[in-house]
Amino acid sequence: MGSLSGTSSSLAAAFDADSERFQPLNADDVRSYLHKAVDFIYDYYKSVESVPVLPSVEPGYLARQLKSAPPNAAAPFDVAMHELREAVVPGTTHWASPNFFAFFPATNSAAAIAGELVASAMNTVGFTWQANPAAAELEALALDWLAQLLLLPDSFMNRPCSAVVAGRGAGTRGGGVILGTTSEAMLVTLVAARDAALRRSGSDGVAGITRLTVYAADQTHSTFFKACRLAGFDPANVRSIPTGADTDYALDPARLLEAMRRDAGAGLVPTYVCVTVGTTSSNAVDPVGAAADAAAEFGAWVHVDAAYAGSACICPEFRHHLDGVERVDSLSLSPHKWLLTCLDCTCLWVRDTRRLTDSLETRPEYLRNHATESGAVTDLKDMQVGVGRRFRGLKLWMVMRTYGAAKLRQHIRSDVAIAKVFEESVRADHRFEVVVPRNFALVCFRIRPSATASMTEEDAEVANRELMERLNKSGRAFLANTVIGGKFVLRFAVGSTLQEERHVRNAWDLIKMTTTEIINGEVD
Amino acid sequence: MGSLSGTSSSLAAAFDADSERFQPLNADDVRSYLHKAVDFIYDYYKSVESVPVLPSVEPGYLARQLKSAPPNAAAPFDVAMHELREAVVPGTTHWASPNFFAFFPATNSAAAIAGELVASAMNTVGFTWQANPAAAELEALALDWLAQLLLLPDSFMNRPCSAVVAGRGAGTRGGGVILGTTSEAMLVTLVAARDAALRRSGSDGVAGITRLTVYAADQTHSTFFKACRLAGFDPANVRSIPTGADTDYALDPARLLEAMRRDAGAGLVPTYVCVTVGTTSSNAVDPVGAAADAAAEFGAWVHVDAAYAGSACICPEFRHHLDGVERVDSLSLSPHKWLLTCLDCTCLWVRDTRRLTDSLETRPEYLRNHATESGAVTDLKDMQVGVGRRFRGLKLWMVMRTYGAAKLRQHIRSDVAIAKVFEESVRADHRFEVVVPRNFALVCFRIRPSATASMTEEDAEVANRELMERLNKSGRAFLANTVIGGKFVLRFAVGSTLQEERHVRNAWDLIKMTTTEIINGEVD
Repeated sequence: MGSLSGTSSSLAAAFDADSERFQPLNADDVRSYLHKAVDFIYDYYKSVESVPVLPSVEPGYLARQLKSAPPNAAAPFDVAMHELREAVVPGTTHWASPNFFAFFPATNSAAAIAGELVASAMNTVGFTWQANPAAAELEALALDWLAQLLLLPDSFMNRPCSAVVAGRGAGTRGGGVILGTTSEAMLVTLVAARDAALRRSGSDGVAGITRLTVYAADQTHSTFFKACRLAGFDPANVRSIPTGADTDYALDPARLLEAMRRDAGAGLVPTYVCVTVGTTSSNAVDPVGAAADAAAEFGAWVHVDAAYAGSACICPEFRHHLDGVERVDSLSLSPHKWLLTCLDCTCLWVRDTRRLTDSLETRPEYLRNHATESGAVTDLKDMQVGVGRRFRGLKLWMVMRTYGAAKLRQHIRSDVAIAKVFEESVRADHRFEVVVPRNFALVCFRIRPSATASMTEEDAEVANRELMERLNKSGRAFLANTVIGGKFVLRFAVGSTLQEERHVRNAWDLIKMTTTEIINGEVD
Repeated sequence: MGSLSGTSSSLAAAFDADSERFQPLNADDVRSYLHKAVDFIYDYYKSVESVPVLPSVEPGYLARQLKSAPPNAAAPFDVAMHELREAVVPGTTHWASPNFFAFFPATNSAAAIAGELVASAMNTVGFTWQANPAAAELEALALDWLAQLLLLPDSFMNRPCSAVVAGRGAGTRGGGVILGTTSEAMLVTLVAARDAALRRSGSDGVAGITRLTVYAADQTHSTFFKACRLAGFDPANVRSIPTGADTDYALDPARLLEAMRRDAGAGLVPTYVCVTVGTTSSNAVDPVGAAADAAAEFGAWVHVDAAYAGSACICPEFRHHLDGVERVDSLSLSPHKWLLTCLDCTCLWVRDTRRLTDSLETRPEYLRNHATESGAVTDLKDMQVGVGRRFRGLKLWMVMRTYGAAKLRQHIRSDVAIAKVFEESVRADHRFEVVVPRNFALVCFRIRPSATASMTEEDAEVANRELMERLNKSGRAFLANTVIGGKFVLRFAVGSTLQEERHVRNAWDLIKMTTTEIINGEVD
């Protein structure tokens, strides 16, 4: 690599610098750059607790600090690292902060980061088995391991447990793939279900798409409804089943069945049901088995979105939330949420991989090879949107290999236990209410109208918005909100990986203090 | 983290180990694990030249070497690293090998790997601007930098150059987003074009989808045709425009126009044209401007897929391949192919971001925030399939910040120069032919039927297949093939980052020697 001095104004010098061989992957440079990055990361984790979680920058702040045009000359790597520290970090929302309680935590671990680093350096593109056999097989193994931790039925395994010795059993078609996001898992299964329903209903091409209907509770992630649009379903045929306090905002299978029967009666084709285990808004759990039973009447595809809460199901005490999973068609879960695996890593298991590959397979000439043609392997490009793919299985395998099931369960239980402490604190203060029962490590709460004698429902709405605003502006906590039953509710998500009980206690003290200030009319 | 000794059979010890606080992101452990990973990477780059590029493992090999069930107990990180070295590496197709000539190289650099490492550790999820302002703004900056290197028109910039001082100009809507793969870029633009065409043609919901038609040359990447299926286009309406030797397998704009007119005349709605700059098969370059002119007659969306060859257009001598780009709607380019940026990183620029967000926007309650509502920012989740997203802009910015435009151009030119040497070698040997003109760093060649007096076209086909087979089995080179004009052709892609001219010379010697053996009837 050239140095700044090599780009002097002397033409001769410039020519020398230019003709010097450029070695962007020189092993010594790689080691040196990575050691600098590791030092940065060490300092970052040591200091992230003490900086504001949410930065106070305004839109456009970065363009005022960094060059607006790309440099022509090379610069020492220290320059980029310096600008990272001085310009990027101050504008960062610190998901790694122990004071981060927003959305869901993006949990992480030393093993995952190291696995991702190795994958970035090897930089293989495993679209087919041949393009990286180890990546394809380690991905299958990691998915099977996690499936075992979740007690998923054999039918979702790449190598069913009962046939491990004998190899892949005849007729076995289950398996999985690691995708980037839940949205992609929804999209590819929606497309597979769509195509199957079109065939089943004798559609001429896609003409029959206007008759296909899909179903999900109104608490389902917005990205599901977007995925339906992407796949070409008619927005008028996407049924958002109303939920309410009677089911703690979970899907009511009777309402689902009623909607499907009404549609089928009207000549429509119920095609797909999305069931959520742990909704983003409030962690509601849709009844998996009952939804599968309703869908079975129409041959509709059932997908379980367990992006966040699925990870908890590696603990026996939470596994019941997946009861009935043996009757669904697919399940997705994102270890990048709650299983200590840095972004991105969404696991998708399907009971019949051929239903996916029927819709997603491509066979360009330059990807033909003996392994694919032998039928002995599944090329993972045929189970995803794109062709290229990172070696995502490595980090997930390293997390399970290094920490082991016992520690992973301890991690889940610790978060839940701390959330429980927070929940109890909220319940013990008459000014607050827990709005829905806590299922995992998310507590949905608000200042209740009766917090003071004169507070109305409208006052409470204003006070809760003000509470979130002040907390987030303090830099000492970051919470997101939701709306449940028409009410503005604060979401307190426990589990950022550097978080300890003391951070939750401090946040609770801050919440109480800020609430007192708001109730007393003190100006922020 | 627990140690193996902590999981002894003693119940008390197990309980102690269990109650010991689990700190998966302890800064000292992170540093220690990452240093081990860096040591591995250093050794890997130093040794990858000497190991077979393509492993000789059989399907199922890894399951025979690693545990089939996840461990319960924690293990030192060294265990995972040991299994990585002993079981995973031997089954890896080494894309980083200087003897890798297959597909397109996945180029990489110290700066990119370091950037990705930092992103993995910060592990932010920038779905909205608020969720990580620095990530959103650095991504916009990196895209603008690359757009400047490519001399893209201002209309594709997040901050048009001419308005950098004054800030975002009124009415400016151009901009970009970094996605995972080209397929995703195709899908989101197809959906935006589809929805606009449905509105334009007065469709009732999606009923009109059966009338929408899309166009691409028959050499277009298979993933385009898959993206059309994903977006719900009728397979019968996806026009694959035939190409031939007359255009060096590039799109013939006259044929495109003819197809569109025929469809429009039949009451169909030409909706989208995909133009490729540097096809995967043979690096053909479709004429961007002429395609845009044809599409303009029908208001169809024009997308340019410059996944590989777009990177070359940072050099003035290649920029003409993008001529006419100011008249297209979108352009995608993957720095993870030829711009030294590890997977995954696909840049998508669009002339009107609102056409994307109109189709892709979601507004869940828990993502509401002042910045979004002010309209001053674009939330990148609304320009992609999913919601979650890695901080991909960091590595791309670090590559440009550290190496600078001059070195990046030197990198492209060096690859092209080496490919030219290879091409000349092939042309100088009467037994071979270069099948299509070389445009960038890919040479498509084959043993020609006249290599020996008695060789027929059928013999040549067999000989070429045998040549590729023997080369790949040797472990000393890995090439992929394609079919051009019905003939089996070897693809020799120069540019793996550790590659030097000597590797290409060695490969050429191996090709000549192997060809001699085949022609002489020597058994492999």
